[in-house]
Amino acid sequence: MVSVNELGKRAKGASQFLLTASGEQKNKALYLIADAIEQNKAAITAANEQDLIAGKTAGLTDALLDRLALTDARIKGMADGVREVAALQDPVGEILSGKTLADGMKLTKVRVPLGVIGIIFESRPNVTADAAALCLKAGNTVILRGGKEAIHSNTAIVNVMRGALEAVGFPADCVNLIEDTSRDSARQLMELNEYLDVLIPRGGAGLIAAVVQNATVPVIETGTGNCHVYADKDADIDMAVNIIYNAKTSRPSVCNAIETVLIHREVAQTLLPLMQKSLAQKQVELRGCEKTMKILSGVTPATEADYETEFLDYILAVKVVDNIEEAIGHIARYGSGHSECIVTENYNAAQSFTAQVDAAAVYVNASTRFTDGGMFGLGAEIGISTQKLHARGPMGLSELTSNKYIILGQGQVR
Amino acid sequence: MVSVNELGKRAKGASQFLLTASGEQKNKALYLIADAIEQNKAAITAANEQDLIAGKTAGLTDALLDRLALTDARIKGMADGVREVAALQDPVGEILSGKTLADGMKLTKVRVPLGVIGIIFESRPNVTADAAALCLKAGNTVILRGGKEAIHSNTAIVNVMRGALEAVGFPADCVNLIEDTSRDSARQLMELNEYLDVLIPRGGAGLIAAVVQNATVPVIETGTGNCHVYADKDADIDMAVNIIYNAKTSRPSVCNAIETVLIHREVAQTLLPLMQKSLAQKQVELRGCEKTMKILSGVTPATEADYETEFLDYILAVKVVDNIEEAIGHIARYGSGHSECIVTENYNAAQSFTAQVDAAAVYVNASTRFTDGGMFGLGAEIGISTQKLHARGPMGLSELTSNKYIILGQGQVR
Repeated sequence: MVSVNELGKRAKGASQFLLTASGEQKNKALYLIADAIEQNKAAITAANEQDLIAGKTAGLTDALLDRLALTDARIKGMADGVREVAALQDPVGEILSGKTLADGMKLTKVRVPLGVIGIIFESRPNVTADAAALCLKAGNTVILRGGKEAIHSNTAIVNVMRGALEAVGFPADCVNLIEDTSRDSARQLMELNEYLDVLIPRGGAGLIAAVVQNATVPVIETGTGNCHVYADKDADIDMAVNIIYNAKTSRPSVCNAIETVLIHREVAQTLLPLMQKSLAQKQVELRGCEKTMKILSGVTPATEADYETEFLDYILAVKVVDNIEEAIGHIARYGSGHSECIVTENYNAAQSFTAQVDAAAVYVNASTRFTDGGMFGLGAEIGISTQKLHARGPMGLSELTSNKYIILGQGQVR
Repeated sequence: MVSVNELGKRAKGASQFLLTASGEQKNKALYLIADAIEQNKAAITAANEQDLIAGKTAGLTDALLDRLALTDARIKGMADGVREVAALQDPVGEILSGKTLADGMKLTKVRVPLGVIGIIFESRPNVTADAAALCLKAGNTVILRGGKEAIHSNTAIVNVMRGALEAVGFPADCVNLIEDTSRDSARQLMELNEYLDVLIPRGGAGLIAAVVQNATVPVIETGTGNCHVYADKDADIDMAVNIIYNAKTSRPSVCNAIETVLIHREVAQTLLPLMQKSLAQKQVELRGCEKTMKILSGVTPATEADYETEFLDYILAVKVVDNIEEAIGHIARYGSGHSECIVTENYNAAQSFTAQVDAAAVYVNASTRFTDGGMFGLGAEIGISTQKLHARGPMGLSELTSNKYIILGQGQVR
C-alpha cells in the first residue's frame, strides 16, 4: 500500500502537468474517463458486490447499503456526471483584473488551479468520480480518502480513471486514492501540509468536526445546515405555508432543508393551524414554544436543544416571535450560516432581513431548498461552504481555483 | 483580565453592528480614531516608555528596541495610516455577480464583511492601529494579540481607538486586545472556532508555523519568501545584474527580497563576474554551486540548506543551471510560492516561466521587490498570502471580505 506522504508527493508532481494543460486536453481526458467508466461497468459492479457483501456481514442498515450500491443506472449517472463537468466552461486562465502601473509594468491577476485537493468522504462511491472530475476540470490533482465500506468500489473506479488518464497522455497520479482506510491515514491526510493546498470533507457533522479539529492544512467546512423560515407579520399566509411545507418536507435529509420556523405573533393565530394541517400530510412532528402550544394541540414542547439541532428528519421546531429583530437574533444565535428565509410583503422587512442575517444564502419569499450549485447556475457543486473564508455557499469550479499575479516589465526596479 | 472567550463573544456581538454600518459611518469612525491617536500622543508615549524600560531590563537587542519605540513621527505615521485606510473605497456591498434564474428568482452575490478577524503579531506596536483600521474599513471586528514586549503600548493604542469608536456611536468592542500575553491566550485564540472567522499571523516564520500547526480556526498563512531571479540564456545582462542587485540589496530583511539566483550556463561566464562586482558594493556574501565556483573566486560552497533558507540578510545563493526547465524545477522544489522572476528577451521563455512557475507573483524583467499591496494598487495591505486558499499575494481590503447570496422570489418552491 502506498503511503499517504508518497501519494502527496505524486499528486504534487502531477499538479505541475495540470498547471499548463489546456481546456481541450482536460476535456478529452474527462470524456475518455466517462467512456471508460461505462466500458468497465462489469469490473466496477463486481468490486461493488464485494463491498455490499462485506457491508451485509458487518450489519450495515438497508439505508446505508442502498447508498453504497452501484446499479447500472448509477454507473451510467456517474459517467454522465463526468461528461457534464467536461461540458462546463474552463475556469482556468480567466483574467480576473489587470492594470498598467505608473512605471509602465503590466499587472494581471489570473485564475490558476489550486494545486492538490484532498477530499475525505463517507460511504457513497459515486462521490469518487464526481469529485475527481471537478478537481481535474479546474486543473487540480486530487487525493481521495473514502470510507472503508466502499473501498473496493472506490479502488475500481479510481483504477478506471487512472487508466483513462494514461491513455490520453496525462499522469495517472492526477487522481489518487488512499487505500488505507484506517483513522491513521485520515489523520496523515489532514497533516499533509507539504503537498495539500486544501482539504474538503464531504459527509456528516461528525466527519466535518473531526477534520476542522485535527487538520493543519487549509480546510473548507461544508454542509451543516440549521436553516430557518421566518414568517413576518406582513407575510402572505398561503405563500408562507407553502414555502415551509416545501423547505421542510421536499427532502428533509439535506442541508438546505429547514429545521425551525419563526412566526410573527400577529400572524401566528392564522398561520399555525394552516401550517400544522399542511405538514400533517407528511406526519411532521412539531416541537413548539409556549405560545405555539397555546394555539396548537398535538405539539411537543421545544427545548433549547431543539433549536440547536439539525434534525434532517420530519421534525420541525416552532417559535412565535414578537418582531423581526427577535427572529434575526434567534437566527444569529442558532443558525449555522447556511440558508435563511423571510416571507413578507413588506419592503423594509425584506431589506432588514437580507442585510442583517449573516448566512451564505438569504431568501425573500422563496424556499431555502434552492441553495445548490446547479440551481444557482454554477453547473456543478463540490459542496456548500458554511465558512466565510475562500468560498461561501455552493462551490463550483471557480471555488476550486486560486489566482496568480503576472507582472511584465522592462527592467523596472524599486 | 477579560478571557479570550469573552472577547470573542463581544467581538461577534459588535460584528452584527458593523454588518450594516454604512461606508460613511465607518469613515467617520476612522477619521476620529486618527485624530484621537494624535491627541493622545502623551498617553501613548508614556505607555511606550514603560515597554522600552521593561525591554531594556529584559535585555532586548537595540534592533528590537528600535522596532518597539514609538517616536512622535511614528505616532503621526500611525494616524496618517488610519486616514489613508479611511480614504480607500469601501469594498462592502459590491455586487460581485447576479442573474435572473429561469423561474424568475433574482440571485445576487454581494460582498460582505468576514465578521471577526484575529491578528497575532509580534513586537511592532504600530501594527495595532494599522490592522484594526483595515479590519474596520472592511466591516470586521478584530481581536488583536500582540507580543508581551509591546503590551503597554498596544493597550494604550487600543484604549484610544475604543474611546473614539464609542464617541462616534460604534460599539467599543469593534476593536479588542487580548491583554494576557501568555502562550495560553494565543492558543485559546487559535481555537476560538465559535467566534473567529479567520486568524492572520503577522510575524516571523516561527510564529506562522506555530499558528498553522495549532489553529483549528481558518488561517491565512503570510510572509515566507524564498524568492528567486532566473537569468535566462537570452537575458539582457545589464538588466539582470541590475534586477538582482535591487531584489537582493534594496531591503534584504523583507519577504519579497531574493535569496537565490539561477543563471543559465550560457550567460554565466559573462554575468557572474558583473553580478559579483555589483553585489560587492553591499558586501553581499555569495554561496555558489560548483559551476559558480569555477567562474568566481571568493565564493562559499552552497549547501542544500542554503537553497532552502530565507536568509533575510546580505547573503545570496547562486546556482548555474543547464536550461529553463532546471530553473523552474529548482523553484518548484525550493521556492515558497511568493515572488519569482525571469530575466529574458525571449518570448517563449517568458511564456513558459509565467505559466509553469507556481507562485503568488511571477515577474518578467522586473524586481521581485514590487510584490506589495501599495505597489499593486490595493491601497494598503494586511499581509502577503503565500497560501492559495482565499487570498494569494498582497491582501488588501477585498481579501478581508466574504460574500453572501441574496435571492428575491415570489413564492418559488423546489
